[in-house]
Amino acid sequence: MSEIVLKVDGMSCNHCKMAVEKAAKAINGVENATVNLEQKEVVVTGSVPKEEIVKAIEEAGYDVIG
Amino acid sequence: MSEIVLKVDGMSCNHCKMAVEKAAKAINGVENATVNLEQKEVVVTGSVPKEEIVKAIEEAGYDVIG
Repeated sequence: MSEIVLKVDGMSCNHCKMAVEKAAKAINGVENATVNLEQKEVVVTGSVPKEEIVKAIEEAGYDVIG
Repeated sequence: MSEIVLKVDGMSCNHCKMAVEKAAKAINGVENATVNLEQKEVVVTGSVPKEEIVKAIEEAGYDVIG
């Protein structure tokens, strides 16, 4: 298991936080996903390639930075 | 039928827009509710006292101004 931290742009409120966490948690192999709105970050734990998480977050309408 | 325009604070994204519109549309007598995020406004049409709309929006977690 690993921890992946991604910078996410466009999350402005608790609805956004929930949308991004839900998108990440829906991926097979993801154990947990926690957004920190102030840090504009999501911390994802599990066994999933970073690319899959990025794709899910972008499909939810947010931008992953870097 | 009448049109009521309210200034609403705290709407930052499309999720907020939907949450406020849903709260207003759930009121008996409301025909339609449309949020303009840039104007920070919701336009509500129907036959409902303004106070009821204000209450529903505030219960959804947003502030009606003025």
